[in-house]
Amino acid sequence: MAATSLISASNGAFAGEPIQNTFVHHVFFWLKEPENQNARKQFEKGLSDLVKVPEIKSYHIGKPVESARDVVDDSFTYSYIAFFKNKEDQDIYQTHPIHLKFIKDCQHLWTKVIVYDAM
Amino acid sequence: MAATSLISASNGAFAGEPIQNTFVHHVFFWLKEPENQNARKQFEKGLSDLVKVPEIKSYHIGKPVESARDVVDDSFTYSYIAFFKNKEDQDIYQTHPIHLKFIKDCQHLWTKVIVYDAM
Repeated sequence: MAATSLISASNGAFAGEPIQNTFVHHVFFWLKEPENQNARKQFEKGLSDLVKVPEIKSYHIGKPVESARDVVDDSFTYSYIAFFKNKEDQDIYQTHPIHLKFIKDCQHLWTKVIVYDAM
Repeated sequence: MAATSLISASNGAFAGEPIQNTFVHHVFFWLKEPENQNARKQFEKGLSDLVKVPEIKSYHIGKPVESARDVVDDSFTYSYIAFFKNKEDQDIYQTHPIHLKFIKDCQHLWTKVIVYDAM
């Protein structure tokens, strides 16, 4: 198994490293009941299953960092980034049974989703 | 220099690796003249300088991948993600002279910016 490092943690004394040749699939979820701990648990369980799709190279699951700056949208409930090798792998992911199960099991939990795909 | 791998490229046979303990700063830019090649060049030069802020561990610069799906917003011109060790490093970045120079030199090029910060 060839493992090429795409992100390394520098000690801060060197400039950051570019992530290249990577398809970034960034999804923001606004839950219907963001304060409902059961809904959050169910959603987090859904995400933890979702990231098992084998085409995902890496992923980040986050919550908003609050900010007073106007340009910052901190209204979402969860941020989810999946990194893929290329568009073909992301296409496979879109129709993968694990992804379809996530949508089926969890879509009642959210009120709004925005996806940004970038390469 | 300790270099800990945060993202590794798997061969697709294994589940993806989580990126943890990382502050994700994702910025979407809508340029005023997205078809203007000079404006694009100037903006890309600005970004290439911006990512020299030493607190940036890694970064991704992308363009939208078009999609017919309703949930996908592919209207932006550039996507820029900077990964930081923590909120403190991102705070340093916000007021770093390189960042302030980027805003001063390039803000006339864009019409809209959205920032999502997640941890």
